[in-house]
Amino acid sequence: LITVLAGGVGAARMLVGLRAAFGEEQLTAIVNTGDDATMWGLYVCPDLDTITYTLAGAIHPEQGWGLADETVAVMTAIERYGGPTWFKLGDKDLATHLYRTGRIAAGATLSEVTADISRAWGLGLTLLPMTDQPVRTRLRLAGEDGEDPVEVDFQDYFVRLRHAVPVAEVRFAGVEGALPAPGVLHAIRSAEVVVIAPSNPAVSIAPILAVPGIGAELRARRSSVVAVSPIVAGSALKGPADRLLTELGGEASALGVARWHAKYAGTIVIDEADRSLAPEIEALGVACVVTNTIMSSTEIAGDLATATVTAVTGRAT
Amino acid sequence: LITVLAGGVGAARMLVGLRAAFGEEQLTAIVNTGDDATMWGLYVCPDLDTITYTLAGAIHPEQGWGLADETVAVMTAIERYGGPTWFKLGDKDLATHLYRTGRIAAGATLSEVTADISRAWGLGLTLLPMTDQPVRTRLRLAGEDGEDPVEVDFQDYFVRLRHAVPVAEVRFAGVEGALPAPGVLHAIRSAEVVVIAPSNPAVSIAPILAVPGIGAELRARRSSVVAVSPIVAGSALKGPADRLLTELGGEASALGVARWHAKYAGTIVIDEADRSLAPEIEALGVACVVTNTIMSSTEIAGDLATATVTAVTGRAT
Repeated sequence: LITVLAGGVGAARMLVGLRAAFGEEQLTAIVNTGDDATMWGLYVCPDLDTITYTLAGAIHPEQGWGLADETVAVMTAIERYGGPTWFKLGDKDLATHLYRTGRIAAGATLSEVTADISRAWGLGLTLLPMTDQPVRTRLRLAGEDGEDPVEVDFQDYFVRLRHAVPVAEVRFAGVEGALPAPGVLHAIRSAEVVVIAPSNPAVSIAPILAVPGIGAELRARRSSVVAVSPIVAGSALKGPADRLLTELGGEASALGVARWHAKYAGTIVIDEADRSLAPEIEALGVACVVTNTIMSSTEIAGDLATATVTAVTGRAT
Repeated sequence: LITVLAGGVGAARMLVGLRAAFGEEQLTAIVNTGDDATMWGLYVCPDLDTITYTLAGAIHPEQGWGLADETVAVMTAIERYGGPTWFKLGDKDLATHLYRTGRIAAGATLSEVTADISRAWGLGLTLLPMTDQPVRTRLRLAGEDGEDPVEVDFQDYFVRLRHAVPVAEVRFAGVEGALPAPGVLHAIRSAEVVVIAPSNPAVSIAPILAVPGIGAELRARRSSVVAVSPIVAGSALKGPADRLLTELGGEASALGVARWHAKYAGTIVIDEADRSLAPEIEALGVACVVTNTIMSSTEIAGDLATATVTAVTGRAT
């Protein structure tokens, strides 16, 4: 059994690799919901949907979110009203949000709806939101001196502002009162290996670890937790992880990621390009595996998955 | 100034006629919101939208609701999840509901959003919901003897059950605490003529009159209120008005409509086909105008509008 802490695109590709290497019945993904948003009253879960659509082979190939072969009749029509259209949801994608919103309005939990959506797409892994309670990742922007600080929601930062503004602080509103979703703690306890996917440490993995109980559960089994660095040669493969790490007092490097996750993960997988950082990482007390981490094909993702999991299981034998 | 109490299709056609005859700047419509529904978390206002789309010349020509040249990408995609699709909203129509839901979630009132939607469609009349508070028309179905009574929402009865089941009782949940929307009472007071559109008396007009204050305002000026019968030769032109009137203890005829509205309307307009009922109607103390009420063209609707309004204004001069 393998349990994965997952954000969006990087985690989705990692799950494709893990499925190829180990089969999907073995897999549980615990997915960040701090990026969730309410748009036009709809319950939108970007990370859950990116993972579902990617594993279903239906993800939009360039965007990294939303569906392939998509139409935008609804968003085009909403322009008549001058509504905000910076979050350009496709028609088929909207069906997912409508279904989820309707089910939740009728009393279902996010876990229940997530399982049903995942089943509807034919997926065999277990997909769990980190929590069924609303948690919202909020970013305080680093304004000019003397300006009042501005705090925005994640999608506002990520999509509308194109993550091009410096961030002073990140918090996860509501997380103190959140409970791990049913099955989350069990999935961490019962897994042979826990993988921290190559997702943004500060805004994709941190909210999962902030849910009361989840971080402690990982620390208790740190030696069989392995993280994959989303930073290669000092840069994020996608998104603002590099800048965020620096802005939040960390370092935009595989070493910075190792340091960030050191409390939770006994092992880190880094890219060949960062081989020279291995001694410094080992000096932190984090075992270091060096391999190709750029998942440009399912085969490479499968090799990375095998290297990641055997970093723990191979050691045991 | 002309103020119209309005349901859906019949009222929309009547408003087209009134606009043709008197211009839209003169017109205010107070629209039933008892049929409003929450579908997939979206705020759906069937009567308001039918009126808006009809006056904008964009209504679906056969359906009587929704938009012409519509696509159904979202509803087709939702079938994957096995969601309920008996309420088949089109993509462009969904844009209206998304916009409305988003605005209301952000704190706008239904009145404010209604005004903005109506303006976005280029309409010049004043369109008012009867109230900004949620009121839901609930129908208790007349089950078999011994069965527990079942109560359903209006759209459930109207669309899903195709209004093919007998109704024992109608109530307007929440109406006791509802307030007339801003402008509603003023529109009734300041109008030269108030028209009760040829809408279903029991489920389209009754909820409007049930909003505290509205019914009393009409009774106070009964002599210049004129109703148009939606029943012609004993049948509803559209929908279940005929059966509902009978089931609720009334009579499916122009006489039954006159009796139903007699407290509020001093005059009723009936179809040529019902000319023989005029003496009985006059005997109720309701003045009776006989003309062609089947609005098969804008011209006929305009003639009906003129006959309706001059039934009051012509009398005064």
